[in-house]
Amino acid sequence: MSRPSIKALAFDVFGTVVDWRGSIAREMQALAAEKRIVIDGGAFADAWREGYVPAMQRVRVGELPWMRIDALHRLILDSLAPRFGFEAFDEAELDRLNRVWHRLDPWADTLEGLTRLKRRFVITPLSNGNFALLTNMAKRAGLPWDCVISAELFRHYKPDPETYLGTADLLGLEPAELMLVACHPSDLRAARAAGLKTGYVARPLENGPGAAAAPFMPDEFDIVADDFVDLDRLLG
Amino acid sequence: MSRPSIKALAFDVFGTVVDWRGSIAREMQALAAEKRIVIDGGAFADAWREGYVPAMQRVRVGELPWMRIDALHRLILDSLAPRFGFEAFDEAELDRLNRVWHRLDPWADTLEGLTRLKRRFVITPLSNGNFALLTNMAKRAGLPWDCVISAELFRHYKPDPETYLGTADLLGLEPAELMLVACHPSDLRAARAAGLKTGYVARPLENGPGAAAAPFMPDEFDIVADDFVDLDRLLG
Repeated sequence: MSRPSIKALAFDVFGTVVDWRGSIAREMQALAAEKRIVIDGGAFADAWREGYVPAMQRVRVGELPWMRIDALHRLILDSLAPRFGFEAFDEAELDRLNRVWHRLDPWADTLEGLTRLKRRFVITPLSNGNFALLTNMAKRAGLPWDCVISAELFRHYKPDPETYLGTADLLGLEPAELMLVACHPSDLRAARAAGLKTGYVARPLENGPGAAAAPFMPDEFDIVADDFVDLDRLLG
Repeated sequence: MSRPSIKALAFDVFGTVVDWRGSIAREMQALAAEKRIVIDGGAFADAWREGYVPAMQRVRVGELPWMRIDALHRLILDSLAPRFGFEAFDEAELDRLNRVWHRLDPWADTLEGLTRLKRRFVITPLSNGNFALLTNMAKRAGLPWDCVISAELFRHYKPDPETYLGTADLLGLEPAELMLVACHPSDLRAARAAGLKTGYVARPLENGPGAAAAPFMPDEFDIVADDFVDLDRLLG
């Protein structure tokens, strides 16, 4: 498939580039073991993530002032302490746990796929994660971004159109020269509505084994790929 | 010298990381030869650069609306056409020439120095060059930035304090945890006034052979280095 007009790829990060659920579950279980308490890491990760969209929504509608994801994550984390039994964690432990989002591990194909795609395209994250979070994550995991773009730069969270259009503008591109790559149909639909090209990548384990992926129509997106290496092949 | 509190280094780019004068002189001379005209590439580069600070100053005081460096460079370039005899360049040639700032070559020590510094610090540009310019430059030259930060993100040009403080804020750092690295004392003085650490790097050839560097006092900056490899050693 020839797409000569695409110059840059912007990647959703949580779920698309990195395995947030597995990473958080592993870190929480290690921390719980250290503290000699029992916590279901997967259930904890799911609960934390469930608070994410509603918290951003409160910012998007103006019910909360602009806040970084680090701050929103901490609000949600504090609310989960009684339910999961980590009220006894001290401030330093909670702060370190909150920053697990800076230390998420990539999927097995991520580094090889990004390295291949970088040969022909400008590659950047476009994430609701804050700028420092994305920068720290990339440094730790070796994500070979050409630059780092966060919703924080626009003070708008995805799926607000300012994020997609702002990314094209920062890169000096027309919206149609930029492709959003994501495993979430809702994100891709908003990008398409803003005039971007769209690339769906399947991440069947994002929400854990057996969880169903959100459905989409066969022709909704420009490309549907199995992983990042497949995406590189399809962009051929 | 132990400086445990420094977590990130922000680099001035034009002159400090890349040799703007040599790169522009080479490209202009090649273009002139192709057009069978004679242009002194070094004098042309100097004239273009001379228009840079006054043009930014017009933005800083509000005489011009916010404009990217790409647009300011083009304003200056157009004004130089009669003097240097390239009125006959067509729009595509002028546009390509204007983007030579996206294609500047690094100094001989730049890649090795940055690669070493990246092992211990977050490294980012902090340049008045626009975001796309810095991203394209890094991709072409292989500059191993952890992220890209441009004055464009703050809609303030250096030496406005918003640029230095905004960089620390985006990286989630206190100003004193961030060092500005530059070959221009004026930039470093403004960074120091904003609370940043400062690293001077000598670039004796920035303005061509024989041009004098701007003077500074022996104790004005936290570190004074010969080049980026020396900076890495001094930050040891």
